[in-house]
Amino acid sequence: MASSITVRTPASIANLGPGFDVFGLAVNAFYDEVTLRKTKSGITIISNGSVPSNPHSNTAGIVVGNMKRRFKINGGIEIAIRKMIPPGFGMGSSAASAAAAAVAFDRLFRLGLDSTALVEFAGVGEKASAGTVHYDNVAAAVCGGFTIVRTDPLDVIMLDPPADLRICIAVPKLDVPKKKTRKSRKLIPKQVRFSDHIANLSNASAMVAGFAQKDSDLIGSSIHDIIVEPARMRMIPGFSKVKDYALKAGATGVTISGAGPSVVAFSKKSADLEKISTAMAKGFATAGTKCMTIVCKPTKGADIRNKAKAIL
Amino acid sequence: MASSITVRTPASIANLGPGFDVFGLAVNAFYDEVTLRKTKSGITIISNGSVPSNPHSNTAGIVVGNMKRRFKINGGIEIAIRKMIPPGFGMGSSAASAAAAAVAFDRLFRLGLDSTALVEFAGVGEKASAGTVHYDNVAAAVCGGFTIVRTDPLDVIMLDPPADLRICIAVPKLDVPKKKTRKSRKLIPKQVRFSDHIANLSNASAMVAGFAQKDSDLIGSSIHDIIVEPARMRMIPGFSKVKDYALKAGATGVTISGAGPSVVAFSKKSADLEKISTAMAKGFATAGTKCMTIVCKPTKGADIRNKAKAIL
Repeated sequence: MASSITVRTPASIANLGPGFDVFGLAVNAFYDEVTLRKTKSGITIISNGSVPSNPHSNTAGIVVGNMKRRFKINGGIEIAIRKMIPPGFGMGSSAASAAAAAVAFDRLFRLGLDSTALVEFAGVGEKASAGTVHYDNVAAAVCGGFTIVRTDPLDVIMLDPPADLRICIAVPKLDVPKKKTRKSRKLIPKQVRFSDHIANLSNASAMVAGFAQKDSDLIGSSIHDIIVEPARMRMIPGFSKVKDYALKAGATGVTISGAGPSVVAFSKKSADLEKISTAMAKGFATAGTKCMTIVCKPTKGADIRNKAKAIL
Repeated sequence: MASSITVRTPASIANLGPGFDVFGLAVNAFYDEVTLRKTKSGITIISNGSVPSNPHSNTAGIVVGNMKRRFKINGGIEIAIRKMIPPGFGMGSSAASAAAAAVAFDRLFRLGLDSTALVEFAGVGEKASAGTVHYDNVAAAVCGGFTIVRTDPLDVIMLDPPADLRICIAVPKLDVPKKKTRKSRKLIPKQVRFSDHIANLSNASAMVAGFAQKDSDLIGSSIHDIIVEPARMRMIPGFSKVKDYALKAGATGVTISGAGPSVVAFSKKSADLEKISTAMAKGFATAGTKCMTIVCKPTKGADIRNKAKAIL
């Protein structure tokens, strides 16, 4: 049995407009890499970034601790986290580490868990970050592609995205508030109008059809959220302009990535993606905000690596 | 140019649980047939059933009148309606006649309208019946298969259902109240809890994936509606038992068909469909209600017939 396993997991975009807490999309913009190594005792964390080193407050540490208890695994584990997904920008950074930890733990101890169980264990780690369990990012990080999550009971459905789908991400240089996801969840209305419910549900349904039929235009035109985006956009100075400019530059749909503040513009390989990225940066500039832009595409999920890259 | 056209349209199940006003499924349980024939003047209606003979209160008559005005068609039209879908039982009866009229009108005058335009014209006829425009049944009747409707702007997406999907319909012998659809729409809450919104949206998304992946079990397990069904089920005496018994007999999902009172149980060709139908009838019997049961499957949409069957 191997004494260490390294798993790489992708960044992910949650919500995709109408699919709050339900939709996720794994993208090749950034990856985290987690190596689990058997040790004599305890859970220790090393990393290349500024993630918490206390296993009780680190998402990967929480996942490992929980799985260790659940499967009655003795001995210790060292968790080495190579964090490349910027945390706090709505790119599924904490989910990626949690997902990598769950998949690595499963492989290290040959548990043979299915993807739903892996998503469930990874989701527990997310709770530490967001305050509530939500599985959208972890599902995408584990399974890859476009994922649909149902809870009660947990069920994850994966669809293969169209090959020509491209996403321009604008990551603004903002001071992300502490416990951002918790704060942004508090902005969400407790009640929604029935007609708004139907509007979002119809766009969510169309988006699933778009992924199933590999129709990137339909996916883009389904990114229309009249419930969460209006409530959260005020957290992102310049959002309206970023969206407006990106659409004018040829994006088919624009929305907040997860809890933000990153903004994602959906388009196709054949579009002028440079133009869309520049337009998004100009939109942020109207609010005096600088941003980094990345053009990316959908990618696969958790990937077992033969060898961990040296991280420290 | 032909002087008469006959179009046959299927019964349809709207909502399918979480997809209120969005989802429709054409089924081969019953069909309406509408023949439009050019006459000298006016709009006249003949039928085999008890549909209104006044073209201003007949759904097909309203569609024809509206299209006649819109396309500035002179001369008269006789509308012969062979109504085979029982009206008032949630089987898309009025939608089928409206859809058949729209498709026949398009063909008779060689308008070359696309399916979205046909659904839009047919929807106007539905308004006369339901009090509000909704396109779920007319989309299924025009396009066939499983349909997703988005409005603003109107957009219809069709997915081919799995070949093994079967539906047991129980049509209870109840006195259907006048303007039933209007009344049942009034039962729907104006506001929904955010968590209920997400639950229904996730099941709706899973259902679309089920149709796209031709997974009848996933379709069945997605028939779970915590918003509309609880509000409407009290209109259907015995509903809880019908649902409970059908599930125990092997149905994968059970819900109200459209605005009811018909109840639909989803299953697969390989299941004991007779047992499910019997279970549904037993469920209605607990409330002292008799019902007719039909086993059916998805079907295609509007069908141009070479010859109308004699109806009178």
